[in-house]
Amino acid sequence: MVGGGAGAFIGVIHRIAAIMDGEIELVCGAFSSDAEKSKATGKELNLDPDRVYATYEEMINKEKELSEDIKMDFVSIVTPNHLHFSPAKLALLNGFHVVLDKPMTFDLKEAKELQSIVQQSGKYFCLTHTYTGYPMVKEAREQVKNGKLGNIRKILVTYPQGWLSSFLEGADDKQASWRTDPSKSGIAGCMGDIGTHAFNLAEYITGLKVTKLCADINIVVEGRKLDDDGAVLLKFDNGCSGVLIASQIMAGEENDLSIKVYGEEGGLEWRHSDPNTLLIKNANKPEERWRTGAGYVSDVAKHNTRTPAGHPEGYIEAFANHYRNFALTVKAQINGEQAKAEYLDFPGVEDGVRGMAFIENVIASGKSNEKWTAFTLNL
Amino acid sequence: MVGGGAGAFIGVIHRIAAIMDGEIELVCGAFSSDAEKSKATGKELNLDPDRVYATYEEMINKEKELSEDIKMDFVSIVTPNHLHFSPAKLALLNGFHVVLDKPMTFDLKEAKELQSIVQQSGKYFCLTHTYTGYPMVKEAREQVKNGKLGNIRKILVTYPQGWLSSFLEGADDKQASWRTDPSKSGIAGCMGDIGTHAFNLAEYITGLKVTKLCADINIVVEGRKLDDDGAVLLKFDNGCSGVLIASQIMAGEENDLSIKVYGEEGGLEWRHSDPNTLLIKNANKPEERWRTGAGYVSDVAKHNTRTPAGHPEGYIEAFANHYRNFALTVKAQINGEQAKAEYLDFPGVEDGVRGMAFIENVIASGKSNEKWTAFTLNL
Amino acid sequence: MVGGGAGAFIGVIHRIAAIMDGEIELVCGAFSSDAEKSKATGKELNLDPDRVYATYEEMINKEKELSEDIKMDFVSIVTPNHLHFSPAKLALLNGFHVVLDKPMTFDLKEAKELQSIVQQSGKYFCLTHTYTGYPMVKEAREQVKNGKLGNIRKILVTYPQGWLSSFLEGADDKQASWRTDPSKSGIAGCMGDIGTHAFNLAEYITGLKVTKLCADINIVVEGRKLDDDGAVLLKFDNGCSGVLIASQIMAGEENDLSIKVYGEEGGLEWRHSDPNTLLIKNANKPEERWRTGAGYVSDVAKHNTRTPAGHPEGYIEAFANHYRNFALTVKAQINGEQAKAEYLDFPGVEDGVRGMAFIENVIASGKSNEKWTAFTLNL
Amino acid sequence: MVGGGAGAFIGVIHRIAAIMDGEIELVCGAFSSDAEKSKATGKELNLDPDRVYATYEEMINKEKELSEDIKMDFVSIVTPNHLHFSPAKLALLNGFHVVLDKPMTFDLKEAKELQSIVQQSGKYFCLTHTYTGYPMVKEAREQVKNGKLGNIRKILVTYPQGWLSSFLEGADDKQASWRTDPSKSGIAGCMGDIGTHAFNLAEYITGLKVTKLCADINIVVEGRKLDDDGAVLLKFDNGCSGVLIASQIMAGEENDLSIKVYGEEGGLEWRHSDPNTLLIKNANKPEERWRTGAGYVSDVAKHNTRTPAGHPEGYIEAFANHYRNFALTVKAQINGEQAKAEYLDFPGVEDGVRGMAFIENVIASGKSNEKWTAFTLNL
Repeated sequence: MVGGGAGAFIGVIHRIAAIMDGEIELVCGAFSSDAEKSKATGKELNLDPDRVYATYEEMINKEKELSEDIKMDFVSIVTPNHLHFSPAKLALLNGFHVVLDKPMTFDLKEAKELQSIVQQSGKYFCLTHTYTGYPMVKEAREQVKNGKLGNIRKILVTYPQGWLSSFLEGADDKQASWRTDPSKSGIAGCMGDIGTHAFNLAEYITGLKVTKLCADINIVVEGRKLDDDGAVLLKFDNGCSGVLIASQIMAGEENDLSIKVYGEEGGLEWRHSDPNTLLIKNANKPEERWRTGAGYVSDVAKHNTRTPAGHPEGYIEAFANHYRNFALTVKAQINGEQAKAEYLDFPGVEDGVRGMAFIENVIASGKSNEKWTAFTLNL
Repeated sequence: MVGGGAGAFIGVIHRIAAIMDGEIELVCGAFSSDAEKSKATGKELNLDPDRVYATYEEMINKEKELSEDIKMDFVSIVTPNHLHFSPAKLALLNGFHVVLDKPMTFDLKEAKELQSIVQQSGKYFCLTHTYTGYPMVKEAREQVKNGKLGNIRKILVTYPQGWLSSFLEGADDKQASWRTDPSKSGIAGCMGDIGTHAFNLAEYITGLKVTKLCADINIVVEGRKLDDDGAVLLKFDNGCSGVLIASQIMAGEENDLSIKVYGEEGGLEWRHSDPNTLLIKNANKPEERWRTGAGYVSDVAKHNTRTPAGHPEGYIEAFANHYRNFALTVKAQINGEQAKAEYLDFPGVEDGVRGMAFIENVIASGKSNEKWTAFTLNL
Repeated sequence: MVGGGAGAFIGVIHRIAAIMDGEIELVCGAFSSDAEKSKATGKELNLDPDRVYATYEEMINKEKELSEDIKMDFVSIVTPNHLHFSPAKLALLNGFHVVLDKPMTFDLKEAKELQSIVQQSGKYFCLTHTYTGYPMVKEAREQVKNGKLGNIRKILVTYPQGWLSSFLEGADDKQASWRTDPSKSGIAGCMGDIGTHAFNLAEYITGLKVTKLCADINIVVEGRKLDDDGAVLLKFDNGCSGVLIASQIMAGEENDLSIKVYGEEGGLEWRHSDPNTLLIKNANKPEERWRTGAGYVSDVAKHNTRTPAGHPEGYIEAFANHYRNFALTVKAQINGEQAKAEYLDFPGVEDGVRGMAFIENVIASGKSNEKWTAFTLNL
Repeated sequence: MVGGGAGAFIGVIHRIAAIMDGEIELVCGAFSSDAEKSKATGKELNLDPDRVYATYEEMINKEKELSEDIKMDFVSIVTPNHLHFSPAKLALLNGFHVVLDKPMTFDLKEAKELQSIVQQSGKYFCLTHTYTGYPMVKEAREQVKNGKLGNIRKILVTYPQGWLSSFLEGADDKQASWRTDPSKSGIAGCMGDIGTHAFNLAEYITGLKVTKLCADINIVVEGRKLDDDGAVLLKFDNGCSGVLIASQIMAGEENDLSIKVYGEEGGLEWRHSDPNTLLIKNANKPEERWRTGAGYVSDVAKHNTRTPAGHPEGYIEAFANHYRNFALTVKAQINGEQAKAEYLDFPGVEDGVRGMAFIENVIASGKSNEKWTAFTLNL
């Protein structure tokens, strides 16, 4: 693991998610840019001190010299955005598969370069867009794919948060500080941090691609350097329209990412605050409540579930689904087997490139006086 | 009453809402452009046949000749949009107060003319934007006014319907036919029919005014002549931004108008599907669930409630609140008294003008390549 | 109308509910045992002063002398329980139909006597068990009747209120005072006031009859004279079991009567706090959300609905459904027609007798050391 | 680990829950009474084959001979009920701490014997009543303890399941077979399997103890040997009353254990289907929605949470909380430190004895014609 030292939120989640299914073991780490802190974290995690490294370079270089049965199989990178590209590149070039926290890189240019490297390396790459790990999100995708809703006509995706309602970065909050700092986060704040999740969720469930957008991007809290609020009108490649709303200044909101998709025959709705429920709305029949763990759901949803219906699975399990699918894919390769289709259902480098393109396109649109900005990978 | 013959949805609602509190009695009507149909409706309603008229002109001209204690006090006009202006004008010019269904007129020009007439007539005018009649919508307005949320930063209002998902106007559906017909509805379909409600709700609750907007307006169902779907980015006069979504092609949706408003200190949420609840979201405290009829709500909310907490009040009661407040206002005038402030809390001609301006501005923006269109009353 | 003077909650509801559909007009009343107060209420309601009476005896005796086209058609009695029997009896004996608030009488003996009188009079009798007036309660009954759930196996009905959590009758609260006074309410407080509603709802929806019960009846608030809390184990005539919970000391609860019924194939759930929704739970399919006003509901549900789906109907409309069905029944008789089956779907004297028997049986069981008390009409 | 071989539901949950926080590692096991199956499970779990044992006796005897730093610290027993006592006893007598699945033993006699053994051994003992591991259940307990509700007056706890609606044990379902088999489950089916959870939850949150009960215990599905449905009237040691409902034949229900507790000042409500929410109902203020991960919750709730508010934690995390607290307690002992109070907050042997007493008392009451059966530990 690269990153995830004391005070990091997402590093802990990655560790729990990775180990929970017994497929993955944490064997080494470079947890902090401060060697002492890295050592302390390693100790806390009961790692072999020899495999707690001061830098990711040291880690990758030393690990690759270890024998096959001992050395790590893949690297998990959970650092802030500006420290994604270099360790990922080094790991891939040295023969390690990579799991990387989103957004993929600091900018789109890096993203496309990383895409090339992944493609040339023949290694597996997973980008942890957590929300597509939920069984009912996968069920939603299946329902769209199977035509249950008919042609898609409208997509609404909203990611409301309230935690940046005040100037937290002025109060020495570690999370707020780097996430609102252009030198660490890149050109976007809210749109990079949570807007990309909403964008990815919409494209994942519908299988459609955004083709143009019109963004209203705001810095609401005085003194902040990056956007903390925005709304985006969308057009997709089947001609349908959508709206994406992401904000970190909706005081009192927690993290209730939600999506509604409507087709000719009906709609669906999924919300993070009730993640084990998928509502299917029918034009002429009662609304149905599909549930994680139920006997009637798709095989894909079942594969990503651990408990019977009525035993809530949460954020950590969704996260773990990506890790487990990634690990099963890597394991299949190690065993010389073909990875099953459901194992390969984790977000990859293409999602990462599109996510970075979303960031750059949405910020460009925010600054433009033109109504519509074409969505391009070639900014 | 003008309009509201057989097959009309809203006419029946108006009649129930008007009479339920015992303040208003239906005494006469011109229910249809077909004199026979008008007569039939009058008979069904047990009206004096002499006061069932063939046309609104006849009704107004004959009623004004009746003695004070017999003749009608006001006219309720529940015809399609293109038949709003003329009867309203005639009634006002002949000394009758007017209740009018929304949107106020066929176009903005008529709206402004009607505004002059109302102002010169000294008569009362009520526009039935039903949703602002709900006690918890009034409570929401009070909470904003009292500063509970702090300065407003974000407004999201959504009006989803699914009933026009198919080409119903081709199936001889009376409601669908006139509502999608430019010669009866005016230049907007969805935006006029339900977008205006959403717009009015946002301005009512927050006390803010829209200053510019950016609209994506769509005709989704093939063959339809007016918009059936749209999304609008908004800017308000305090600088804050918002999003308005209205659609009639969200298959499986009923009529779940909802609004969320966020300020510096917290947010609020109201939904038509649970109209007796107002959620107050606090940055650092648990969310609160305010309820119609509870002892702790504002006097305004109480004034607009008939039953103790836990006895659901619905759409008809919300509608009736406007009628009751209007009747109490008229009655105060008749009695030579000052109408209480809470009586005057019904939508009026200014709401109507702004609603018609919304329609024209939003359709203009939908056609424009400029991102932002200034909201103006002078189109 | 008998009763319903100033300060009465339910009298106002009766009046609104009665008139809202235009089928019924209030023509006379004896609103209070105090002649002055009665007169004042009559004036407020714009009644002809000649038809505002000092006593119900006066009202019935004078009204019956009026000509057919003028005199009242039926009497609505909304007094406290101890004043139900006499006016109802007098009205029936003098040829008037009767609408009576529940519980039907002061005790079971009176109830059975009233039953005889109704049967002999050939007049119509309606007992206002409001909750069975909701369209989705009627839909629930239809679903059970049509076998959707299979044989019924379990019934849970709960009526939680919190308003009597403190010793309100000591604080000069009019409602609390008579409802907790044995000389006015009879032998039961909570079980009579709301337990009977729960009991009636369970028997109405399932079509089953209680055959034995086991009650835990409590007076929780010190100084109170009648039960304010209870729970009852039930056995029904098909052998299935149930639980009825009713309490007025559940602080913080409003009026959320709810019922769940389970059969071999699935279950259903209805709650007063979301009255336009009926949940249908299926053993092997997603739960379904049936909605008032939807195209797919039964004809009975539709007959008892005024607005399209998504326009909430509430307590007053449920109440009004009983009045409307009663009025349509009376009207059919007046017109020499057969009342349609759906008109006759209002609670009658048999419901009243069973309700009074419930009260006496449940209080007897509460005092008994035997586990099971047979449910009998012959106490 | 003892038990948890192929086909076991709860064994997998135990393993995930145990390892997820990095405090516990699975080092050995006797996973099945079939040595081959045990070996296969061990292999699947990547265990050292030398530490995969054919029987629990072999495991305990061999493990105790290993050096301190290698041998297991505690035993997790996840077998059916009739195989709880012997391995637990053997483990304790040989110096191992024990985690045991509920209900604790086959009968009350064994339970009390195990209690003695635990007390004499000086070892730690944890009974996995999962639901008390949820942060919002712990918050509920804190609120009661701090007097937020005032004196407790009413407790309603319901555990509805539908999975045994049909005669699944006749269909070769492993779970259904042992859980409905008196030789494996003991004298109770539903009451032992889920009734004990409901009972434990009520006593945990309120701090009160049941003193008498009145039970209606049913076998609904033909051919079944143990109860699959029941309802119980309760009296607690402060004089207040309650109702416990547990059923496995509520077709269409999943696993929605819920509890409502009412005191003089207000009430609280927690449901397993929305486990990160605790509703606080106030007599004279809006209902509050307390949420896992929020800044305002108690330290105990925070200690049992891994993610920020709005990131749902589920069943596995609740389970893991018991494991983590147990592990932290054991670790403190190993390190010669005092376990913190919040570490000791896991269900123990006293909960187990009371749970077994509940089973025996409730079944006795079910057979009795007396209304009330005193709750005793001395059956």
